[in-house]
Amino acid sequence: MNVFDAIKLRRSIRSFEDKPIEEEKLLRVLEAGRLAPSAKNRQEWRYVVVKNKELRRKIAVASNNQYFIAEAPVVIVGCATMVDYVLSGGQPAYTIDVTISMDHMTLQAVEEGLGTCWIGSYKENEVRKILNIPQEMRVVEIMPLGYPKFLPDPKPRKKLEEIAFYDTYKE
Amino acid sequence: MNVFDAIKLRRSIRSFEDKPIEEEKLLRVLEAGRLAPSAKNRQEWRYVVVKNKELRRKIAVASNNQYFIAEAPVVIVGCATMVDYVLSGGQPAYTIDVTISMDHMTLQAVEEGLGTCWIGSYKENEVRKILNIPQEMRVVEIMPLGYPKFLPDPKPRKKLEEIAFYDTYKE
Repeated sequence: MNVFDAIKLRRSIRSFEDKPIEEEKLLRVLEAGRLAPSAKNRQEWRYVVVKNKELRRKIAVASNNQYFIAEAPVVIVGCATMVDYVLSGGQPAYTIDVTISMDHMTLQAVEEGLGTCWIGSYKENEVRKILNIPQEMRVVEIMPLGYPKFLPDPKPRKKLEEIAFYDTYKE
Repeated sequence: MNVFDAIKLRRSIRSFEDKPIEEEKLLRVLEAGRLAPSAKNRQEWRYVVVKNKELRRKIAVASNNQYFIAEAPVVIVGCATMVDYVLSGGQPAYTIDVTISMDHMTLQAVEEGLGTCWIGSYKENEVRKILNIPQEMRVVEIMPLGYPKFLPDPKPRKKLEEIAFYDTYKE
């Protein structure tokens, strides 16, 4: 599947089949994240790949009771070490780097016929406790991964003229 | 080109041909960003697409004299409106959303035979002034876009066992 088609076909999936993910597919999704660029090639991303059913349930609860997360056979919890580095432009490097890496995974998942949803709502300290993540690390995203029960319609997007401007910004 | 090949072929490009980008290619790159997901579908990304040569030169200077940026025929400056929303997990929504959108662009660029580099080092206020970006908006990334003069070798990456752990985190 080409990149453009994967981008067009991607949806936020909130309902998953009760069906395991083939190991080679999971490995390609993780590999897609592993190959991502990062500031100074620090690769500060760390992934907890949660397959255990009870742990997935606990993560769903810690994600403000978003129970659909536990439906997914795999939940990838994206974390970061070395979280103090702020780029000179003013953005935290770890947030950007983990996001790039997990967006790679999202698009690779589409190519594998899998679905994901970006979860940014969770109690970080509870997630740390459930998965043994050290206090000095940050949790950046929780990503359920599995076969979608169905594909939702695409959500509306702003027109290109509303978000892109040539040479100078115009409101 | 399939997603996995695009991810493997992506490089950080710091040397560009003096050759314009076909308009339909540029539009597909921007479209790839436009279709990205964002928290609550807020789509708070705004893009200044800089083609003007003198403005590109100024952006390169404001990016701590990274002159190769000005070599690219197009420089996309990724900004955000509505920058106050912090996800309950603790991460700034705008940083994540703009990063997802621009990572989509990066991979679409590979599919188009184009190259990009993620620039996080710049003087934000100078960039704002050069491009007329309001003070309340943030600049998240500067992305030169063009035909690579050559493809660098891939950079080394940590092994999967160093970054991925099953069910619980282990140092």
